[in-house]
This record gives sequence, C-alpha cells and structure tokens, in this order.
Amino acid sequence: MKQEHSQTFPVEAFSRRTARSASSALDRWAVGRIQHAVAGARLRLALWDGFEAPASASAPVATITFKNRRALFSWLWDAELNFGEAYMSGGVDIRGDMVRLLEEIYRAWPDVKRQPWWFRRESHSVRTAKENVHRHYDLGNEFYRLWLDRQMVYTCAYFPTPGLTLEEAQIAKMDLVCRKLNLKPGERVIEAGSGWGSLALFMAKRYGVSVCAFNISAEQIAYARDRAVREGLADRVHFIEDDYRNVTGTYDAFVSVGMLEHVGLSEYHELGSVMNRSLTATGRGLLHFIGRNRPMPLNAWIRKRIFPGAYPPALGEVFERVFEPQNFSVLDVENLRLHYAKTLEHWSGRFEAEAGEVARMFDETFVRAWRLYLAGSQAAFNAGVMQLFQVVFARGDTNAIPWTRASAAAHT
Amino acid sequence: MKQEHSQTFPVEAFSRRTARSASSALDRWAVGRIQHAVAGARLRLALWDGFEAPASASAPVATITFKNRRALFSWLWDAELNFGEAYMSGGVDIRGDMVRLLEEIYRAWPDVKRQPWWFRRESHSVRTAKENVHRHYDLGNEFYRLWLDRQMVYTCAYFPTPGLTLEEAQIAKMDLVCRKLNLKPGERVIEAGSGWGSLALFMAKRYGVSVCAFNISAEQIAYARDRAVREGLADRVHFIEDDYRNVTGTYDAFVSVGMLEHVGLSEYHELGSVMNRSLTATGRGLLHFIGRNRPMPLNAWIRKRIFPGAYPPALGEVFERVFEPQNFSVLDVENLRLHYAKTLEHWSGRFEAEAGEVARMFDETFVRAWRLYLAGSQAAFNAGVMQLFQVVFARGDTNAIPWTRASAAAHT
Repeated sequence: MKQEHSQTFPVEAFSRRTARSASSALDRWAVGRIQHAVAGARLRLALWDGFEAPASASAPVATITFKNRRALFSWLWDAELNFGEAYMSGGVDIRGDMVRLLEEIYRAWPDVKRQPWWFRRESHSVRTAKENVHRHYDLGNEFYRLWLDRQMVYTCAYFPTPGLTLEEAQIAKMDLVCRKLNLKPGERVIEAGSGWGSLALFMAKRYGVSVCAFNISAEQIAYARDRAVREGLADRVHFIEDDYRNVTGTYDAFVSVGMLEHVGLSEYHELGSVMNRSLTATGRGLLHFIGRNRPMPLNAWIRKRIFPGAYPPALGEVFERVFEPQNFSVLDVENLRLHYAKTLEHWSGRFEAEAGEVARMFDETFVRAWRLYLAGSQAAFNAGVMQLFQVVFARGDTNAIPWTRASAAAHT
Repeated sequence: MKQEHSQTFPVEAFSRRTARSASSALDRWAVGRIQHAVAGARLRLALWDGFEAPASASAPVATITFKNRRALFSWLWDAELNFGEAYMSGGVDIRGDMVRLLEEIYRAWPDVKRQPWWFRRESHSVRTAKENVHRHYDLGNEFYRLWLDRQMVYTCAYFPTPGLTLEEAQIAKMDLVCRKLNLKPGERVIEAGSGWGSLALFMAKRYGVSVCAFNISAEQIAYARDRAVREGLADRVHFIEDDYRNVTGTYDAFVSVGMLEHVGLSEYHELGSVMNRSLTATGRGLLHFIGRNRPMPLNAWIRKRIFPGAYPPALGEVFERVFEPQNFSVLDVENLRLHYAKTLEHWSGRFEAEAGEVARMFDETFVRAWRLYLAGSQAAFNAGVMQLFQVVFARGDTNAIPWTRASAAAHT
C-alpha cells in the first residue's frame, strides 16, 4: 500500500532544500502579490528567513510560512493547485487555525472562475469511474476505520442538535434519509454507491426493506458483504460490485448518498434513465450530494490529489440533466452545508488523533495532504463555497407523495 | 365593468347556431381523431345530433358534447387553444365531473411541446406587466370577494391536514411562509407582488415586522391600504403602487408569493438583482410560485383569456437565472402541488355557489371561462402538470441560516 501510494503522491521534498539564503526584494514582491490576491483575509505571510509581511488585516487567524522560494513562486503561478502541493510536500507551513485560515482565504478569494472549456470533456466511462473510485475509496478499510464513525459512513452526517456525537449524527442522517423516502416494510430499494454498506444495512434493519446496493469499490463491497453476513441480513441486502449504469430490476425507492459528485455531467442523463427504468409507478427517490450555488470547477488540487474526476454540481445542472428529461418531480430540497462542516470537524479531530498511525501506514506527505483536504472541505462548507443538498423526487404523474413534511420530521 | 369585459371575451355565440343537421361521416371522422389524441382518457365524445363515439375506456368520468361543427373542427385544429374557446362560448358542453375529465385529458395528452421559438420574446416591460396584471387582477375586488377567503388570499393555501377550511389553510400558509423566513420582531420585510395585502398585514400583526409591499394592481393597492388603516397597521405596512423593479432600500427579508409567474424569463436576472440589492448581509428570502417539472409553455387558452404573459418556470430556470448570478444559496424547496389542487377545489365550490352573481356582474361566457380555468388548474395540479414551489434562499456567504427545519415546523 505504501509503495503504491508513493507513486500517487511523489514527494518532492522541498522542505529538505530549505533556502538558507535571506529573502530577496523579488521574494518580498511575490509575498506582496499573494497578499494582494487575498486582500481582507486575516492571515500573516512569512518567509523562510523570518521575514513577515505587514498583516493586511487585524488579528490574523494563522501564519503561512513559505519555507523556500519554489513554494512561494509556485503559489504565485497557480495558487489553486500549488498551495496544496506546497503544503503537502512541506514547502509551506501553517501555524494557527488551519480551518479558519482556509475559510478566510475562501471568503477573500476573487470571484471564482467559470468552468474552463475542457472541463466537460473529462471521461466518466465505466472504466475511468472505476479507476477514479479506486484511487480514493480503496486506500484501505483500515485507514478509514481509524477516523470514520463505527459504521464507516463517509458522507455528511445530520445533527438534529449540534452537540450530538458523530456516531449519533450518522444514524440520524440515515434515519432522515429513510423518513424522506417514506420506506415501508417489504419494499425494495436500489442504492447507487453504497460505501461500506451502512445505509443499506440500516434500511433493511430499521425499516424492513430489501436492498440491492451497487458499488464499484472492491474493498468497500468486500467489507459490506462481510457485515451483511455478520448481521444476518445477507438474505435481504445484496451488495453488487458493479457500475450504477448496469442496474436492473424495478424498485420502490432509489437512493444515492454521495455518489453524484463522481458521476460527471456527461452521465447525468444516463443516471436519470437508470432512475426512470428502475422505479415503479409510485416509486420515489433521494439524491444526497455535495453541490454548489452555481456551476464552477472543483478545486484543482482536490481533483489532482484527492478526488479525480469529481464535480459538485449546481442544483440547476442536476435538475436539467437528471430530472427534467425523465419528467421527475422535485418534491423537497434541503441544504445541510453546516452539517457537513460539523461532520468534517469530527473527522479532522479523529484524523489528527491517528495521524501517527496514518503516517506509518502511508507517509508524512499523505498525512499533510489529507489534513489539508479535511480542513479545506470544512472551510469550504463554512464559507458557503460548497453545499450539501438532499433532493427528494417522484415521478411527475404520481400522487403517492407525502401530504406534508410532518411524516419526515420525527427524529430518532 | 360588463362592457369592458365584453371587449375582452367576444361572445361568438356558437350555441345559438347549433346545427340542426345530422352529423356527417366527416364529423364522425373528426371525433375519431380527437378520441385518438387522448387515447386512454376515460371520457365520452358526443355530437349535436346525439351521436356518441364508442367509449375508448371503461367508465367515462364525463361526456363532452360538441354542439356544432365549428366547435368540433376548431378543437381538431388547435385543441390547446380552442377547447377553452369552444367551452367558453357554449360550443361545447360537459356533463359529469369536469375536474376529473380535464385530469384524464392531461394524463392522456401526448408529451407536451417544448417552448416555441417565439416564446421568450414576449414583452415583460414595466408597461406590459402593468397591462397584463390589470387584465386579471383588476376585474373588481367585488368579484374576487365573492369566492376567495375572507382575507382575499389568491395563492396556494397550505393544509396541514386536508380537512382544514380555506380560511384556516390560508392563515396556515402565511404562517408557514413567516416561519420559513424566520421573521423576528422589528425586522424589515420587502414584499414583491402583495395582492390584497393579506400577507403583509399578517407579517406585521403576527410577527411584529414592518413591511414595504409593492404591487402594480391599482384595485388591489387601494383595498390593501384601506385595510391597513382599518387594522391600525398603516404605520408599519406601506403599500406602494409600483413595479418590483423599482424597489429601493435594504431589508431583512424578501418575500414574493405568486408573482414570479408574471415576471417573464427575460426579467429573471433583474429580479435577482433586485433581491440582491435589497437584502442585508444576513437577509433571507422566499419565492412561492407555480412551476413545472420541465420547461414548457403555459396553456395557450389560459394565456389568451386568463393570464396574459404568464409563465410557470421549471426550478432549473429559476435557479440559473434568478439565484446563480447573485450567488444566492438555495436552503430549502418544498413542492405543495396537491395543496394547490385542494385550494382550487375550495375556490371552484365557492365560485359555483356565486355563479349567478358573477353572471350578473359579467356574463355567462365569463362564468364558463372562469369555471374552466379553475377546474383546469385543479386538474393540472392533480395530474402533476403544474407544481407549486416554495424556495427559501439566503446569500451564499452567510451562516445566519437555520440549523435544521425544526424552527419552521410548528403549525398554527
């Protein structure tokens, strides 16, 4: 595992070549440019020789220290990609509150770019999808077990009150999904993208339904099948190692939690077709996904290092491409972005507590990359740069829909 | 009033020229074509001489009788427009359950057309908007008083349970809107399109806010101002006879119930700008509007006779044009279409009870046109051809948003 990872994250080890030389006027000019780009953010910028730029705002939440010239100029060249690259490799250090620092940067950053011309052309073939998923979700169940909740739910939790434990909040989330789907005993559910199986098993156990759960991560499927057997649910929960595009059969409910981000815009119509052909006349569905207030590409570093091929869509993109062509009716949308910030806060805390173990499993660069990914995601949800949408839908012509929200409102 | 109306609804009085002649083979062929177009709908088609087409499905819910050749062939030529024209003028009679009949037709109709090329070019200038609104909302407060609830709320009600009275359900709707907006005493609210003033006065009275309410219907504004004075709220609720595009000032909440349908796609960006410039940094808003599952033009007859210039949008159109350009964040969407069907059922019942009075105020053609409009709207919401969306939004960068839905869930 460690060797494979080293190929994925080439350590350029800037840190070992830390410039001993004093910073030049050019270096200080570069710092000024960077400070200008995030004007208003409460942060301090420093260089390897102790130089500190005059703080542009009072009470900085953290100090970013460039440990060598290469880190400094790579950020100037392409901050979106190279801040992450430099931090990961040790070319940049952060002292202070990393989440608040990143939130300051998100809020100060000039208005984001629209999608570049090449963006829609990324492949999301069945094969590429499998490779993309493998890169992230097959890092090893042992790794995820270190810092996820006991049930290994790797999506936004739901905190009826903010003080809940992560364990409780993940159960509350699964229950919320089931209530929104109005699941009844004996019904058949299709799940697209089932992670380590927690939702599929929860639905079967608590709501008495049978579930077909599709997933293309081999490690997750193996884990989930094992769990189904151990919990005596193997007869009612079938984990299928296959692409969602190969779903067959008809079901009373379609649910997908945290998969749409990996589907790719080019496949949205196909996803809608799958939903359409797999739902009964009175079937209903729920999509839970990370989204945006408007279309924009995912951060380049996250795409490169963490989630290849991922894209959090704007609601309009989902509605136009997934729902409208099939005449699905949107019944309910809820934005839970602050719940994802809270979830990530839990994950970061648990991850840091196990950072030494993670470094032994992989290496320090991996720890720094994941620290930045978790902190940056929390900051993005806090700053409103990312959203978490739950969308409930049904066929356009069925009146078998909830009269009000009251039926979905009870908490566990 | 009667005279003005006669210009708008020219009575062609087909009914007085009812063909005495027996129907021909051509007439019967035409009936067959019509039956084919709505194949599967449980209805019976009949002609002026007693001819009845063999029912295409069992247990017809109603019989449509063409009373002359002109009505028959005009329907064949353009059913979407001329069914309404023929019914209104008496060229067509309907025996049986009109709502169920129209629902059968909606459900059986071949898939609806996309927007025609000319559709986006309808004018929605300030002047045209005023004319369009005048045609419908200035028919006379006395007319609307006959069949609306006591508070004169002419938008979808909310029935926590289906058995509520219309009065109760309109109050429940206004309360739902206020709770979703999380209104607090002393806050300032801007309302775009305020009808007869019921929501503005309700917000001030029950939630202690001050309200600026914009409306371009002269009759409605006069009524609302009078009511504000009578209820002692004139110091806190200001009714302004002007276009929403002329809104000035900043407010804690922006609310618009039943106006977006009249705004026109070309003005959506401008509406978003108005919302953006009139909301404080932590402001939030709610749009309540009739919509669609996907873009399609409004029924041609409704556009011609009832709502000139109206367009119920798909959610994606609203999000892309109103919210995205301003970086608004969608927090919550609820689809209440069955509540609008229930509301229309109440309105139809009250309208029929006052049909004689309406005929005296206008004429029989007017009664038939409005009967068809109310029944057709109820059928459209029942059949899932129309939706009723409430969308709650806030600025993209504020965290002053509800943690969960619990705060909005209490019923009056």
